[in-house]
Amino acid sequence: MTNTIRLGLVGYGNIGKSAEAAIEAFPDMEGVAVFTRRNPETLNSKLPAVSIDQILEYKDQIDVLILCGGSATDLPEQGPSLAKHFSTIDSYDNHGEIPSYFSAIDASAKENGNTSVISVGWDPGLFSMNRVLFDSVLPSGKTYTFWGKGLSQGHSDAIRRVAGVKKGVQYTVPIEEALDEVRSGSQPSLSAKEQHERVCYIVAEENADKEKIEQTIKTMPNYFEPYQTTVHFIDEETFENEHQKMPHGGFVIRTGESALENQQRMEFQLKLESNPDFTSSILVTYARAVMKLKEEGKTGAFSVLDIPLSYLSDKTPEQLRKDFL
Amino acid sequence: MTNTIRLGLVGYGNIGKSAEAAIEAFPDMEGVAVFTRRNPETLNSKLPAVSIDQILEYKDQIDVLILCGGSATDLPEQGPSLAKHFSTIDSYDNHGEIPSYFSAIDASAKENGNTSVISVGWDPGLFSMNRVLFDSVLPSGKTYTFWGKGLSQGHSDAIRRVAGVKKGVQYTVPIEEALDEVRSGSQPSLSAKEQHERVCYIVAEENADKEKIEQTIKTMPNYFEPYQTTVHFIDEETFENEHQKMPHGGFVIRTGESALENQQRMEFQLKLESNPDFTSSILVTYARAVMKLKEEGKTGAFSVLDIPLSYLSDKTPEQLRKDFL
Ligand SMILES: NC(=O)c1ccc[n+]([C@@H]2O[C@H](COP(=O)([O-])OP(=O)(O)OC[C@H]3O[C@@H](n4cnc5c(N)ncnc54)[C@H](OP(=O)(O)O)[C@@H]3O)[C@@H](O)[C@H]2O)c1
Ligand SMILES: NC(=O)c1ccc[n+]([C@@H]2O[C@H](COP(=O)([O-])OP(=O)(O)OC[C@H]3O[C@@H](n4cnc5c(N)ncnc54)[C@H](OP(=O)(O)O)[C@@H]3O)[C@@H](O)[C@H]2O)c1
Repeated sequence: MTNTIRLGLVGYGNIGKSAEAAIEAFPDMEGVAVFTRRNPETLNSKLPAVSIDQILEYKDQIDVLILCGGSATDLPEQGPSLAKHFSTIDSYDNHGEIPSYFSAIDASAKENGNTSVISVGWDPGLFSMNRVLFDSVLPSGKTYTFWGKGLSQGHSDAIRRVAGVKKGVQYTVPIEEALDEVRSGSQPSLSAKEQHERVCYIVAEENADKEKIEQTIKTMPNYFEPYQTTVHFIDEETFENEHQKMPHGGFVIRTGESALENQQRMEFQLKLESNPDFTSSILVTYARAVMKLKEEGKTGAFSVLDIPLSYLSDKTPEQLRKDFL
Repeated sequence: MTNTIRLGLVGYGNIGKSAEAAIEAFPDMEGVAVFTRRNPETLNSKLPAVSIDQILEYKDQIDVLILCGGSATDLPEQGPSLAKHFSTIDSYDNHGEIPSYFSAIDASAKENGNTSVISVGWDPGLFSMNRVLFDSVLPSGKTYTFWGKGLSQGHSDAIRRVAGVKKGVQYTVPIEEALDEVRSGSQPSLSAKEQHERVCYIVAEENADKEKIEQTIKTMPNYFEPYQTTVHFIDEETFENEHQKMPHGGFVIRTGESALENQQRMEFQLKLESNPDFTSSILVTYARAVMKLKEEGKTGAFSVLDIPLSYLSDKTPEQLRKDFL
C-alpha cells in the first residue's frame, strides 16, 4: 500500500479512545482528528480534538470516518447523516434494528457516492461471519452463540442502582455444562439462561444490609431473576485492582452431521482482555476494505458478510496465497 | 435461488464419494455425473459414471466441475486442462506449490471465460481464512496452526510398509501442553514436533517381532524419528471396529496484544469425524460462490480469500443481515 489511509474518529468514549490507540499498530493508517459533541478542550486525546460542528471542514483530509458512538441513540442519528459526507465504519450492535439501519446508511452513502461498512466488531462482526460460514458449509446442524466471560455494561449499571451498592460489576459467564452438551453434538434446545449465568462483584456502602442487596439483585425481573446469579461482596481495593478492565469473548459453535452420518464440529472462540480495544482494532482494519471497495467504485452500505478476507489485509493477494493459504 | 446448480464430479476416491453424498444436503444443487479415468462400469456410484474422455460432451449440462483428484499428481494435470472448458472447484493442498498452481488455473480459466476456485476445504480453506482474518485484525501477535487429532494418510502408508505390519493407522495428535502454552499468550517458539505427537495402531502379522516393528517405526527418519511416537498393538477386530473412519481437525490460534497492552485471543477449532465428508461439503458449498462470480462476469482463478461469506449462503443478503449479522 503506497498511500496512508487517513482516519477520523467520531466520539471519544471507550471505543473512541481504543481506536485512537489502535491506529498506531497499523502502519498503513494515520489518525487525523477526534470529533466530539462535547467541548473539545475537555478531551485529553492525543489526536487533535475538534467539535463535531466543524467536521465538514475536514472532508478533504479524511478517507474514512470511524463512528465510535453508542448504538442506542448516537449511531442511528450520526450514521446516516455522516454517511452523506464521508465513507464510514461503525460497530452498530442493535441486532433487531440492523435491517433498517442498513437501509438508512445505504441510502445516504449511495446518494453521495460514499462507502460505508456497518456493524463491524466481534458480535456483530467476527461472530456473524462464523455463523454464516458454519451454516453454509454444513447445512444440516445447529449453531449456538455463547457470550462471556464478559463484562455486561447494562447489567453493571443495573446493580449500581441498587440501594447500598457503592461499586459493582456484572459478568456474563457461559455455563460449562451447556458448552459441553453443545460440543457433544446432541443439539440441545437451550434458552439464554440455560447457556449463561450472571456473577456480580460488589463493594457495599458502609453498614449496608448485604443480604438485602443480594436479594434485590437476584429478584430483579428480566435482568437477573431468570438467571442463575451469584453475588460476591469484595473490598474496594480488590475492586480497584481486579475489576477495572472490560473483558469479554464467547463461542460460536455448530455441530451437525455431514453426508454419510459423520459428526462434525466447528467452533470459533474469543477471549478478550479488553472488549473496546479488540472491537476498535477490527474497526480500524476495515478501513482497508472501504478503500478497496471505493477503488472498485462500490458505493452504499456493506456488512462484514459482503467483504472478502483479502480486503482486510495489508498484504498483496500473491503474498496471502503464498504464506497464508 | 431459482435455478439448480448442476455439478459434475471428477474422480471417485474419498472426496469424490463424499461429494456425491454431500450434494443431497444442498437443495439448490444437483449432481449430473461422475467422471473417472477408470472403467466407469467398475464404479458403484449413484450418479451416472462416465469416462473422463467423454467429459467435453457434458459442457452444456454442467455449471461447475468439482475436481476430486489428488493434489500430488491428479490436480496439477487435470486442473489447468479442465479449467479451459469448465468452471471448477478443487481442494489443492500442496501448500508450497499453490502460487504456480493458481497461475496455471488462472491462465486456463481467463482465456476461456471460466471461473475457478482453488484450494477449497479446511486446510487450505477455512484455516487459511482464519489465519488471514486473525493476522489482519490483530497486527501485533503470533498465529499457530495445530492439526489433529487426525488420520494421516502418508504416515499410515509408511507404517503399513514395515515388515510384520498387517494393518495400521497413524494419528497426528496436538500436544496438550503446547496448546495450553499457546493459549496462555506467551507466544512460544514451537516446531512441528513440539506441537504434535504421533500415535500408531497396528495389527501385527502372526508371530511378528513386535519389538522390532515398534523400533523400526520409531526410528524412521523424517516420518517418526523427530517426533514423540507411541505404538499400540491391537487385534484385528478392534482395528476394524475403531479405526475405519478418517477423523481430523485442528486449531488455528492467535494471541497478541492490542493497543493499551491488553491480551487478546482468537481461536478456530474443527473436530471432524470424517475429513473427506467435511471437505467435500465445503467444496459443494463453493459452487454458489462460483455462480455469483460468474454472474458478475468475474473469470480466472480465485481462492477462498477472495470471496465474501455471503456468496457461500443460499440465503439472501437481506435474510443474512436480519438473522445472522
Ligand atoms: N460490534 C461489536 O462487537 C461491538 C463491541 C463493543 C461495542 N460495540 C458498540 O460500540 C458502541 C460504543 O461503545 P462505547 O463503550 O465506546 O460507548 P461509550 O463509552 O458510552 O461512548 C459512546 C459515546 O458517548 C460519548 N461519551 C463518552 N464518554 C463520555 C463522557 N464522559 N461524557 C459525555 N459523553 C461521553 C462519546 O461521544 P462524544 O465524544 O461525542 O461525547 C462516545 O462516542 C456501543 O454502543 C456498541 O454498540 C460494538
Ligand atoms: N483442502 C483440504 O482441506 C483437503 C482436505 C482433504 C483432502 N484434500 C485433498 O483432496 C485430495 C483427494 O483426496 P482423496 O482422499 O479423495 O484421494 P483418493 O481417495 O486417493 O482419490 C484420488 C483419486 O484417485 C483415484 N482413485 C480413487 N480410488 C481409486 C482406486 N480404488 N483405484 C484407482 N484409482 C482410484 C480417483 O480418480 P479416478 O476416479 O479418476 O480413478 C480419485 O479421484 C487430496 O490429494 C488432498 O489434496 C484437501
